[in-house]
Amino acid sequence: MTFQYKNVYINEVGTVAGPYEKKGPFNSYYDKTYENFYMGKPTWEQAESKLIEDSVDVVLNKIGKTKFDIDLHISGDLLNQTVASNYAASSLGIPFLGIYSACATSMEGLIIAANMIEAKSIKNCICTASSHNNAAEKQFRYPVEYGGPKPKTTTFTATGAASSYLTYHKSGIKVDSGTVGIVKDMGIKDAYHMGAVMAPAAAETIYRHLMDTKREIGYYDLVLTGDLGIYGKEILKEYMMTEYNINLKHYDDSACMIYDPNNKEHYAGGSGPACLPLVAYSYIFDKMRKGEYKRVLLVATGALMSPSMVNQKLSIPSIAHAISLEVVE
Amino acid sequence: MTFQYKNVYINEVGTVAGPYEKKGPFNSYYDKTYENFYMGKPTWEQAESKLIEDSVDVVLNKIGKTKFDIDLHISGDLLNQTVASNYAASSLGIPFLGIYSACATSMEGLIIAANMIEAKSIKNCICTASSHNNAAEKQFRYPVEYGGPKPKTTTFTATGAASSYLTYHKSGIKVDSGTVGIVKDMGIKDAYHMGAVMAPAAAETIYRHLMDTKREIGYYDLVLTGDLGIYGKEILKEYMMTEYNINLKHYDDSACMIYDPNNKEHYAGGSGPACLPLVAYSYIFDKMRKGEYKRVLLVATGALMSPSMVNQKLSIPSIAHAISLEVVE
Repeated sequence: MTFQYKNVYINEVGTVAGPYEKKGPFNSYYDKTYENFYMGKPTWEQAESKLIEDSVDVVLNKIGKTKFDIDLHISGDLLNQTVASNYAASSLGIPFLGIYSACATSMEGLIIAANMIEAKSIKNCICTASSHNNAAEKQFRYPVEYGGPKPKTTTFTATGAASSYLTYHKSGIKVDSGTVGIVKDMGIKDAYHMGAVMAPAAAETIYRHLMDTKREIGYYDLVLTGDLGIYGKEILKEYMMTEYNINLKHYDDSACMIYDPNNKEHYAGGSGPACLPLVAYSYIFDKMRKGEYKRVLLVATGALMSPSMVNQKLSIPSIAHAISLEVVE
Repeated sequence: MTFQYKNVYINEVGTVAGPYEKKGPFNSYYDKTYENFYMGKPTWEQAESKLIEDSVDVVLNKIGKTKFDIDLHISGDLLNQTVASNYAASSLGIPFLGIYSACATSMEGLIIAANMIEAKSIKNCICTASSHNNAAEKQFRYPVEYGGPKPKTTTFTATGAASSYLTYHKSGIKVDSGTVGIVKDMGIKDAYHMGAVMAPAAAETIYRHLMDTKREIGYYDLVLTGDLGIYGKEILKEYMMTEYNINLKHYDDSACMIYDPNNKEHYAGGSGPACLPLVAYSYIFDKMRKGEYKRVLLVATGALMSPSMVNQKLSIPSIAHAISLEVVE
């Protein structure tokens, strides 16, 4: 399902990142960073809410508006019952829609918001996605203090929040179209190899996006996936070629960019709902503003399992949502 | 934030209910019911996915279409990472948006779908909300086998799934408008008294809905809240009068209707994302079709905490989303 938009723009963005991301290559691009995982809060869950609030505050400051000027806030995260978003929404007090699409959350939010703005049923919307490494590790695997070893295919949940401000005013980056993904399940049960789980979902969404928009892959200066990691990235390239005969030439993956590639403590790369928008809204948007990229396809990928389902030995379903962006001429 | 719709209709619905709901007053109205909590599946989580799949199948059968005819599926539930919806979406294979708004999920889905249909960016959508008593109890409190006593203000998570089929074809029930809620937190920390937590959110959404639409409360033949329960229902009535000077005369609460009111094993009444739509799409829709109600305001209420946040002694934020329905003339 692909939506075409004529009058939707990301006017501004706000990126807030944690200590590992601060040490990464895009530190200078983030609006705000933290030295530790607590963000001045007593727990990691509350810290993640703070990241969301911060990223919305950054946006509001940049656009010179208050929360009362915002029609709608859409947000989601990885925590059980998406509480990082809920508690942030409680502080923010903006009409709120909670969403969940694991690490594909960021693009799901943009799709919902862009549809409402295109239809002029709202005048603006802030969309947020967040994740927190320690909060996610504790919930999905083990507390980080446990220090358990992990296979090298594991990805490292990014700590941060990224918000975007969407309106129909022609400024910033144009939202050209959005493709809603279909859930794929290839039978993989390895929760430490999300790249393999999610690559087929990314492939299908890219393929459907190209079919729906009648475009060739070369139309895009860059296809950027969310958090496939160094192994998942290769799987996607192979899968696209084998399954759809599409050569992903101008392609990269946020997971492989957000940290220093020589630093092995992040295993196969970054992940989490914040990973893609942190990279896209900072480094990639900068390149778009400079004219180095004109058309970019963001493909956020999400693994839709829970620890309960993994413990029940079920295979892991995944999804990918895509948003096509263009430089405003 | 209130959206007005001119061309959105719920053409059909599908309701699937569990064993306790089957013993309730609306048994004959449900499309399908189960005698036990497993629905033929090995676990409760998988059983909840089955309820969702069943409710979508019921809808598809009623409208004589296949999944390939459906543009979009929107679904949410209470399970961690909304896995009941995700695994059902994996079986169904319809482009999928996952949402989370606790027990307000049903109306959030309708709002997102109705906006897309009003804008004619999709031709149809199936919206689903589900809950499963045993899966929810295990996750939020204790496994039911533990048999822990509970305060009488506790609500009883309904088991079931309810799906609605929305298009712009004028048949069934008209979706007149939708109000997105703002998260409220009155400082209540008692996770066994959700009615008290959620009543202020319901009140604010009803009030905002009336202000935005410039209507008096008497415009509606019925205001139906989701799952406040017998105590929360009284709190809402008092709160509406004290805070907004609005007399909720033609008002009821799904929690107080879904089970036999003389049966005390459900404490203060039903709850869960399925509670409101099970009652609304069965008994209330029947009354609307017969002309007994012409205009109904559905107000789904959700408590947005998680066990983690309750354990951290945080107060519980809540939200309510409203949908106004009208009989098609």
